[in-house]
Amino acid sequence: MTIYKIIEDNIKIIDRALDKYVNLESKYERVIYESMRYSLFSGGKRLRPIIAIKTFDMFDDRKEKVLPYAAAIEMIHTYSLIHDDLPAMDDDEFRRGKPTNHIRFGEALAILAGDGLLNLAFETMSKDLVENTQSAEEYRQKARAIYEISQYAGCKGMIGGQVVDITAKPDEMDGERLYYMYEKKTAGLFQAATVAGAILGGARDEEVDLLRSFALNLGLAYQIQDDILDAGEDEDIDKLTYLSFYNLEKAKEAVQNFSKRAHQLLDDLEGRDTSFLRGLTELLVDRKV
Amino acid sequence: MTIYKIIEDNIKIIDRALDKYVNLESKYERVIYESMRYSLFSGGKRLRPIIAIKTFDMFDDRKEKVLPYAAAIEMIHTYSLIHDDLPAMDDDEFRRGKPTNHIRFGEALAILAGDGLLNLAFETMSKDLVENTQSAEEYRQKARAIYEISQYAGCKGMIGGQVVDITAKPDEMDGERLYYMYEKKTAGLFQAATVAGAILGGARDEEVDLLRSFALNLGLAYQIQDDILDAGEDEDIDKLTYLSFYNLEKAKEAVQNFSKRAHQLLDDLEGRDTSFLRGLTELLVDRKV
Repeated sequence: MTIYKIIEDNIKIIDRALDKYVNLESKYERVIYESMRYSLFSGGKRLRPIIAIKTFDMFDDRKEKVLPYAAAIEMIHTYSLIHDDLPAMDDDEFRRGKPTNHIRFGEALAILAGDGLLNLAFETMSKDLVENTQSAEEYRQKARAIYEISQYAGCKGMIGGQVVDITAKPDEMDGERLYYMYEKKTAGLFQAATVAGAILGGARDEEVDLLRSFALNLGLAYQIQDDILDAGEDEDIDKLTYLSFYNLEKAKEAVQNFSKRAHQLLDDLEGRDTSFLRGLTELLVDRKV
Repeated sequence: MTIYKIIEDNIKIIDRALDKYVNLESKYERVIYESMRYSLFSGGKRLRPIIAIKTFDMFDDRKEKVLPYAAAIEMIHTYSLIHDDLPAMDDDEFRRGKPTNHIRFGEALAILAGDGLLNLAFETMSKDLVENTQSAEEYRQKARAIYEISQYAGCKGMIGGQVVDITAKPDEMDGERLYYMYEKKTAGLFQAATVAGAILGGARDEEVDLLRSFALNLGLAYQIQDDILDAGEDEDIDKLTYLSFYNLEKAKEAVQNFSKRAHQLLDDLEGRDTSFLRGLTELLVDRKV
């Protein structure tokens, strides 16, 4: 099966799961579900949940076990985009060719839709914890996965990265701080995805840590490749990217180095089928869009 | 011990817990902790965590067990105030006599501080789940508490209530919808507090449900009493309150009825010391501020 087919199949699985989780009965507040679903089903690539599922697959084939966690990570990713687009933040009017959430639903609902998705991520995971868990060992696994996700999403992770992004004055920013920001803001949820997938699949601690490092390198390669691709179009000179500190040649070199390191880390996962993660890494590094 | 002394002692316990949980190391993003702590330590009455602790106390005396959950509920309450105060929502410049979070730190950081507190609530609970849980039975209790809290905080609960508040056109609002909104927006976190406290304390299901109903009645009495107290000062004619639909006499009657019902529900908790919850109910209903 080609990697494209695997991705396509998993997108369907994730979309079905999200459709189920974000489809609640409601009386007077239906519009919040419309607003959450508008952003959730707006053509996202589902990279993070796919990574969670395919990492889990390396250790366990009962895919339904990882779905609530994969979906939760996508909800967290989506809420962060909604809040990042707000006028007080990046003030973006379009995302993926469609009006951003606050343009479509107004600022108040966009803030609440973000809050709602973040809350729903933990609601979805804790519901699974209550309803589909038997042994103390299984509780322990799931609890660890939730805690890891919460840390990568929170102030020590993604939110912290966003704070660095919006508060750093141009003259304070340097290469080191940019890496720090990219690690938290972009790589964090990639790490949450691999780590949660691995823990839920029953991976050994050394394997979890190899996948954690793999995802850090993948996330950094992905973000710098993003900067390279955006460089042509992005006329927003205020926006600090990798190319504000390094030239194009250095940027391409960095992408290759992080990608190479990611592959090396997978080499150490002996006896596991790492082909999907390898293929995905190549795909993301070589992509043109 | 007087109820005032009990409240005072518990406020200290809660403040110490919050200080511990919201005091993380950070490099470039320290300001998000300042912003979260600014709102968290701005003179809140700590009602919800006190209710959680004192409900737990009725069933179990190892108070440290309930603290992460009590603190989490206060974090959720605080994030909701920060986001409610934003210009796109209620646009309030002062709260408890101090500038609101976005006035002090700017809108972007206020949004992120709210996100950060909501995330930290679940981070704090899942950390406890990972680090301080032994048996499957104890995991089950804590998982149930987290799931209950997530539901009362989310789109089925507090966020849903806020959506009703900001989206209802004046001619759509009526007494029924107002009750619906108060139940979700105000009573919800009171219910989260009693239910989490009871579950963690090992209460029987019937006891959990009595306390759930008690907190609903307490929350409604509290909110309508709030409307009565605000009626004199609140010159914001756009704001719909109980007094937009009922006269003052009816409002006072409603407060007494909900309070009476709350007491009756406690009567059914045989063999449990309900004195604190009774005292608190009287205090909140009779309060002048």
